[in-house]
Amino acid sequence: MPKARAKTKTRAKTKTKARTARPKAKPKNAFYAQSGGVTAVINASACGLIETARKHKNKIGNVYAGRNGIIGALTEDLIDTGKESAAAIRALRHTPSGAFGSCRYKLKSLEQNRREYERLIEVFEAHNIGYFFYNGGGDSADTCLKVSQLAESMGYPIQAIHVPKTVDNDLPITDNCPGFGSVAKYIAVSTREASFDVASMAKTSTKVFVIEVMGRHAGWIAAAGGLASSKDTEIPIVILFPEVPFDKDKFLAKVNGMVKRHGYCSVVVSEGVKGPDGKFLSDQGLRDAFGHAQLGGVAPVVANIIKEGLGLKYHWAVADYLQRAARHIASKTDVDQAYAMGKAAVDFALKGHNSVMPAIVRSSNKPYKWKVGMAPLAKVANVEKMMPTDFITADGFGITKKCRTYLEPLIKGEDYPPYKDGMPKYVKLKNTAVKKKLASSFKV
Amino acid sequence: MPKARAKTKTRAKTKTKARTARPKAKPKNAFYAQSGGVTAVINASACGLIETARKHKNKIGNVYAGRNGIIGALTEDLIDTGKESAAAIRALRHTPSGAFGSCRYKLKSLEQNRREYERLIEVFEAHNIGYFFYNGGGDSADTCLKVSQLAESMGYPIQAIHVPKTVDNDLPITDNCPGFGSVAKYIAVSTREASFDVASMAKTSTKVFVIEVMGRHAGWIAAAGGLASSKDTEIPIVILFPEVPFDKDKFLAKVNGMVKRHGYCSVVVSEGVKGPDGKFLSDQGLRDAFGHAQLGGVAPVVANIIKEGLGLKYHWAVADYLQRAARHIASKTDVDQAYAMGKAAVDFALKGHNSVMPAIVRSSNKPYKWKVGMAPLAKVANVEKMMPTDFITADGFGITKKCRTYLEPLIKGEDYPPYKDGMPKYVKLKNTAVKKKLASSFKV
Repeated sequence: MPKARAKTKTRAKTKTKARTARPKAKPKNAFYAQSGGVTAVINASACGLIETARKHKNKIGNVYAGRNGIIGALTEDLIDTGKESAAAIRALRHTPSGAFGSCRYKLKSLEQNRREYERLIEVFEAHNIGYFFYNGGGDSADTCLKVSQLAESMGYPIQAIHVPKTVDNDLPITDNCPGFGSVAKYIAVSTREASFDVASMAKTSTKVFVIEVMGRHAGWIAAAGGLASSKDTEIPIVILFPEVPFDKDKFLAKVNGMVKRHGYCSVVVSEGVKGPDGKFLSDQGLRDAFGHAQLGGVAPVVANIIKEGLGLKYHWAVADYLQRAARHIASKTDVDQAYAMGKAAVDFALKGHNSVMPAIVRSSNKPYKWKVGMAPLAKVANVEKMMPTDFITADGFGITKKCRTYLEPLIKGEDYPPYKDGMPKYVKLKNTAVKKKLASSFKV
Repeated sequence: MPKARAKTKTRAKTKTKARTARPKAKPKNAFYAQSGGVTAVINASACGLIETARKHKNKIGNVYAGRNGIIGALTEDLIDTGKESAAAIRALRHTPSGAFGSCRYKLKSLEQNRREYERLIEVFEAHNIGYFFYNGGGDSADTCLKVSQLAESMGYPIQAIHVPKTVDNDLPITDNCPGFGSVAKYIAVSTREASFDVASMAKTSTKVFVIEVMGRHAGWIAAAGGLASSKDTEIPIVILFPEVPFDKDKFLAKVNGMVKRHGYCSVVVSEGVKGPDGKFLSDQGLRDAFGHAQLGGVAPVVANIIKEGLGLKYHWAVADYLQRAARHIASKTDVDQAYAMGKAAVDFALKGHNSVMPAIVRSSNKPYKWKVGMAPLAKVANVEKMMPTDFITADGFGITKKCRTYLEPLIKGEDYPPYKDGMPKYVKLKNTAVKKKLASSFKV
């Protein structure tokens, strides 16, 4: 085990001092990569991981990051995070996006593409890598699981730890996923603000506002739109979940009722909403004047349904990347948890663990309390956590009290980045390449 | 002049005390209304105005707000702001939208609809209104000008002061308009954040991000997208201004060059961009599968042009109301100026002025210094201030240094609202109706 070996070396070093020392093996290096769609806080996990590793130089040598995720490992394009100042690494905590580059690339199974794993081992061996930290969602957990089995399957000793991240909040076991809380806060705040706007204008202008949010399969982000309304600040909101097949007549009746009662209403629609035919509502086969196919979002489709069905004036917004990049309005809970997951990954590695993922364990709702738990990767990979049925109201257009109790702590607290001249100061790392050691290249 | 009369009364009151006083005329009341599209800071102007008026009870009795703007005056639907606590009025400073309701309603000329003016005078007279404060953009300045002439044209003494507001930043004389700085900050911050996101993903995923911003006629808001890039934080940005006719080939070449050099690029497109035929680019005559007309934004149109012309993967966002309601990321400069405009309107009224508008006068760029000036309404009404030609780069796709120097101070400083449970605490006023005094109603 790398852990045991590292410990022996530390003791040796402490006792003998440099000049009289026997030639000693260097501590193993770590590989870290960001995977899949980035978030407002994935860099906070990187920050927690690198800062913690730096405190254990005797056990973890360098942290090498993959440039553009796992592709960096396959192509031996490694970034030496040791070249970054402490201040730069600290600034990752408040910088959105993936500082080392991310990618959408899923390793095939060992049977399907043995060459990929052999290549990984070549690169890891050349750079003395004994720790593999992979920061991503469900697909990445699967990749991480495969790497964690390299000792067994191909005889290369490595500890692989998955660091959870996904705005979709669909990983199992962990109570919630870092990245989700900040998107949830962004959508809740934006929906509240836009609803205030519409309420002021409804007398003579816009009566329905439609906002499209992310979430192809699970309605977690759409549900967060429900937080725009609270006991103090009631707002008429209709939510369209991907879990609930779209029923046009019921929807129009719901919107009409809201507008009649409140003078206006806001609609939060998940990009993944499907019609009764199971097809995405956004996939309307739109054509422009020249007959070219036009890729639209679902917000304009829903807006059009309102116009045609009710004749009400509407406006629509598509938040797209703004929602998952909005570090300026990140949730403090989310930032803290993202950092803690990165830190825990290193702590787990130092304790000799392999094939695990730090998870968030909720121990109390009010006051909100959570701690770091540990999940076996085999139970995380390729499992999607959907919204529980009892989180959606009976009519299918809102969130229940239970859902609210779950969501509320996740958006709590503000964690503002520093500003310069009116703009948030986000760090761009130097991202210095580690010198290549292999003669061969690899095509991904 | 109401001013002189009020002064006399104050003295009388001070000298004689209530019991021995001669029957004294009450000080005139004020009417305040919000007009047109609301902003993140129009309520800060209301706050400045009402707080200042409350300090001069001897000269300004009550401030009555029009429910839903000028419609409230015509229908005698007045709100007694005196029923709101000091804390509630203070909270207007950090609450977006129009707290009393706004409307899009332009008074016709005296010749065209004399009845409207007669009705205004009936309502003003019934409620002892001597001050008219109108908070809006160019159209509202015109309405305010007409009201300011009621003394002359119809013998009703009134002082009318216009309070500038518009996200479009297109009012003349004033250096900038309250409301614009906060939208500018929102667009600059959002574009920077989304660009960081795209930069991380560009290797295997999205290479071009398109964000649609407001501005039908003038490109001020689109220009603010240019601030996403700065000397510290360079970002490849292409701006499409309504002032520059869209040239597809030039645009594609520009985007392609950016992507070749930087690996990705962001496009900020104004909703008002027109093709060489003078038609809005967003007006593409889209049809759905059933042949229904589909109202789209310009962002998906531009995204499609990129897909068809360059085959690059893209994402697009439409900020819509989110941008003008985003009080959570308001510019401190903007909030301060909005408040100052409301305060100055009352100060001007107390000094006996009529038919004027407080304006922002810039006296220095670095350090940024500004003071309150006074603009004659006749020179403001119906004049649109366009972007100066030398604010747009020669190729038509960027902002010049001169433009940057102008814009930068306007987004400076943060002015966060208070939060409760992770959500901004925005105030909803009681908006108590003033008892009607007229028997007649009025149809708008």
